[in-house]
Amino acid sequence: MAKKKTVKKTVKKTAKRSIAKKSVESAGKKTISPTSDMPSLSKSKGKFATAESMARAQRSISVSEFFAKNRHLLGFDNPRKALLTTVKEAVDNALDACEEAGILPEVRIEIHQISETHFKVVVTDNGPGIVRKQIPSIFGQLLYGSKFHRLRMSRGQQGIGISAAGMYGLLTTGQPVKITSRTSRRASAHYYELQIDTRKNRPDIIRDEKVDWDVSHGTKVQIELEAKYQRGRQSVDDYLEQTAIANPHVSFSYRAPDGREDCYAATVKALPQVPREIKPHPYGVELGVLIKMLQDTRARSLQQFLTSEFSRVSPRVAKEIMATAAIRTNARAKSINGDEAKAIYKTIQQTKILAPSTDCVVPIGGEKLIAGLKQVFEAAFYTAVTRRPSVYRGNPFIIEAAISYGRPEKPSEDEEGETHGDAKKPKEQSGNGQDKQLAKLIRFANRVPLQYQQGACAIYRGVVDTNWKSYGLAQARGALPSGPLTVVVHMGSVWVPFTSESKEAIASYPEILKEIRLALQECGRKLATHIRKTVRIRQEMKKRSYIEKYIPAIGEALRDILDLKDRQVSRVCSDLKDVLQRSRKL
Amino acid sequence: MAKKKTVKKTVKKTAKRSIAKKSVESAGKKTISPTSDMPSLSKSKGKFATAESMARAQRSISVSEFFAKNRHLLGFDNPRKALLTTVKEAVDNALDACEEAGILPEVRIEIHQISETHFKVVVTDNGPGIVRKQIPSIFGQLLYGSKFHRLRMSRGQQGIGISAAGMYGLLTTGQPVKITSRTSRRASAHYYELQIDTRKNRPDIIRDEKVDWDVSHGTKVQIELEAKYQRGRQSVDDYLEQTAIANPHVSFSYRAPDGREDCYAATVKALPQVPREIKPHPYGVELGVLIKMLQDTRARSLQQFLTSEFSRVSPRVAKEIMATAAIRTNARAKSINGDEAKAIYKTIQQTKILAPSTDCVVPIGGEKLIAGLKQVFEAAFYTAVTRRPSVYRGNPFIIEAAISYGRPEKPSEDEEGETHGDAKKPKEQSGNGQDKQLAKLIRFANRVPLQYQQGACAIYRGVVDTNWKSYGLAQARGALPSGPLTVVVHMGSVWVPFTSESKEAIASYPEILKEIRLALQECGRKLATHIRKTVRIRQEMKKRSYIEKYIPAIGEALRDILDLKDRQVSRVCSDLKDVLQRSRKL
Repeated sequence: MAKKKTVKKTVKKTAKRSIAKKSVESAGKKTISPTSDMPSLSKSKGKFATAESMARAQRSISVSEFFAKNRHLLGFDNPRKALLTTVKEAVDNALDACEEAGILPEVRIEIHQISETHFKVVVTDNGPGIVRKQIPSIFGQLLYGSKFHRLRMSRGQQGIGISAAGMYGLLTTGQPVKITSRTSRRASAHYYELQIDTRKNRPDIIRDEKVDWDVSHGTKVQIELEAKYQRGRQSVDDYLEQTAIANPHVSFSYRAPDGREDCYAATVKALPQVPREIKPHPYGVELGVLIKMLQDTRARSLQQFLTSEFSRVSPRVAKEIMATAAIRTNARAKSINGDEAKAIYKTIQQTKILAPSTDCVVPIGGEKLIAGLKQVFEAAFYTAVTRRPSVYRGNPFIIEAAISYGRPEKPSEDEEGETHGDAKKPKEQSGNGQDKQLAKLIRFANRVPLQYQQGACAIYRGVVDTNWKSYGLAQARGALPSGPLTVVVHMGSVWVPFTSESKEAIASYPEILKEIRLALQECGRKLATHIRKTVRIRQEMKKRSYIEKYIPAIGEALRDILDLKDRQVSRVCSDLKDVLQRSRKL
Repeated sequence: MAKKKTVKKTVKKTAKRSIAKKSVESAGKKTISPTSDMPSLSKSKGKFATAESMARAQRSISVSEFFAKNRHLLGFDNPRKALLTTVKEAVDNALDACEEAGILPEVRIEIHQISETHFKVVVTDNGPGIVRKQIPSIFGQLLYGSKFHRLRMSRGQQGIGISAAGMYGLLTTGQPVKITSRTSRRASAHYYELQIDTRKNRPDIIRDEKVDWDVSHGTKVQIELEAKYQRGRQSVDDYLEQTAIANPHVSFSYRAPDGREDCYAATVKALPQVPREIKPHPYGVELGVLIKMLQDTRARSLQQFLTSEFSRVSPRVAKEIMATAAIRTNARAKSINGDEAKAIYKTIQQTKILAPSTDCVVPIGGEKLIAGLKQVFEAAFYTAVTRRPSVYRGNPFIIEAAISYGRPEKPSEDEEGETHGDAKKPKEQSGNGQDKQLAKLIRFANRVPLQYQQGACAIYRGVVDTNWKSYGLAQARGALPSGPLTVVVHMGSVWVPFTSESKEAIASYPEILKEIRLALQECGRKLATHIRKTVRIRQEMKKRSYIEKYIPAIGEALRDILDLKDRQVSRVCSDLKDVLQRSRKL
């Protein structure tokens, strides 16, 4: 808040002070008069451009040229990230395909190091396979796919990822993408080698042949690329581990470039609930879009248009909208003019329409999130919250959050480390004496871990904006809370608004931010109860140990004062202990 | 650092502990056997998809469909930002066109409120105008323009911005973009109304006519859109103010939606140096790109190819590369095969080639940055640094930084507020008693202010990663420094790597981050000297005032001890003051 205020202040300052401001009248009437700099225009023939010379330079840019030059938009900023992005795009596709086909996913990931900077990624799945003639476009053309033109929760949604990985491989190594796919035992497997033609955004087919492949259905993708392998944070290993947390139904086997083999077995033997595809909700549709939809619809009547192209519009609601917008009941959809469309648009905003059905967004589930967290972070306290589905721009979404806190066990042993510190290596933190290790944040969107661009993500903003001090944690302004805290947030949606094509951060739509904050606050309140309890237990233990220490002395004193016998003294002592015991409220 | 370590730690923990890991041998040999879940595949006919049903859903996505659905990528997340983005894209284009044509820019920005959520933006410039037949594509097609296929420092670089603003206007209001343009007194002005056909990414021309326009050259763009106007941080007003800081040669007149008129007069009467267009540098070219360039070149010999398509490759260097790569001197460019290309690529990396010429990146200049800062932030201390140009991925760039610090004047008056606090409203900060207002950060890329996505920006990361404590400021881990500090950073480049199409944040290429850090460190060291000096002055003043207070008492004491006369006492006192004066080292 303070930040906002100060900036505002300076804005005011300027307006008042320094930048030359003409009087309202003169500026208001003045039209731009370019005559003053005509002399400089005449120079144009030399080093300056003219409208004509600029026109000659104008041309179309193919989408693949665009992304080749802007490949950091797709997650190919550097060789290490390029390796991760390639694996991720292939695995995301594999998981989506398996789940859509109702197959429990088993995915094999291999990374082979060919030379110092040259790697080969091979991802094989047991999915439904890909119909032969679709393969070239799916792998050799940007903006091609089945997921863009629908509203359904899935990992992929843009039709860019895997072809971009192939393009990056081609650009850096000159090698084509190699795909083997088989759709059933009855069909033979097919092998393709493809290169994207960046200037035309079209696949060049280098090789196209039937092959033997001893699996009944599945797809295998091979991409060679310039890359760098390094374990640790933001690595492929990290990605697989986090993916396992959010996808307990998936089995991975993984061959790292150093030859090491890892296997993540599925801990859940059933597929998650299948998310339903939905139609857009009328509240999320803009005027221009509505006009376009009216032009393009196959529906004949307006009523049919409203009920068939949108979700939650019953014939009754459609009639209500048409009546309020003063449009005849039997109006044809295509004959609606601009003003009528405007009236319909306005009426929709004012009509009560059911919120979108929310069985289209499937949460991971609090228990599974905690189970996943437990696998990775040993802690004293865990809690999770799954919010009810909500809606942004007509798109249903759901937010879940889980947190782990504190060191496991022995809460009373060493008080110093309780609110900060980590169980295993306290030495590491005492380094700068402040013991202010920041909380760890793990982000997921549609079950996919988001490992980069934390600072750009609505989830990060939600965590930073939450006042963790009120839950008993330390937190500097504009920073994550500090302490032995891990925060996990998952957003599931029919359309996740990523801040870039590389799908690394979620855009901060107000509705999304609000849900994230509410989920975190709910977790925070439970955490506060835990922290207060721990603190109370600790204080109680301390008080009790003091008193227990003095009970014998009290006994001795009473013996002297009241002239008690040894037996009486010991009874008094045990009575005192008893009273003490009962007065403890836990 | 602590964060990184802890995450690594937990990774190790997992690998050891919880996730089921099969032995290396068995996992290594095991191929994915999808037979286990064949039963679930058979369900496909019902609620699950098959390869065939998925194939039917596959289709191309037009780039405008893509961006219409992902319009937050282009800066149209919400109505307030949409207004800013629209103004920004129009103004950026206007400034680029004027500067390329050698015209001192005069730009008029008008925002009219049509209804509660419906606004009209009108931007008029005195630029060279646009040749008539180019207008539809420039304003009605995404990915079309003159700036993408070249390496030259300019505000626009993608060919998306203004057509995206028009598309947003169309989607939200159904209104076309209206353009009036005139290229010279000899040509008549032309008026267009355009709508982008999102499905085809092509302009639909609604109106196309000659009109009278009383300017000799220039362009006027009108876009109606759903928007929200609000002053303050991240507003259009804020944008114009920051643009004025970085563009002292531009004159703006601005009509706000509330009718208020502002005018920012140019404070510099000459255009900045014209940035030169360059060829790509061989170090920045990847193998796949090199192969593509060899296929497409018009150069006949390889030597000619190398010298004409790259910067800094002289005939001598070309010969050296060819000799080392063992390619005959008269080889034809088009006949180079894959292995030869690989050899050339490798050789380039090992050959000493001059760094790209750097007259292609034009800084704003330290003095102008400070002058701009002074207009907006009154402070006690200013400093600026312009680094030497550097290179990332073959693209030259330059980093400049400026900072302002402290309250203006009266450094010794009130000590409490010195390192924190703001001159004008100290009450605001004492709110939570910690007085920890964060530094303000102003970011520019090619003279364009970046107002959103601070957290995603290399500049923000550079500021947060810099250790401001060593320069005498307070700073929490992972946060901006706190105190009355304003940091300005400008990156100029022939190609700024933005993290999204909305051009709000710079991607963290290591070379860029390094330069930002070095610039900030240089500013930081100067700041540290200033802070130390201020602290020393203050301590000195304090000491002196103490001693001055006691000098008369010392005089009295000496009178008693040494039996001095009044005259002697006063001489001793003034001598003491003198000594004190001389001992002050400032």
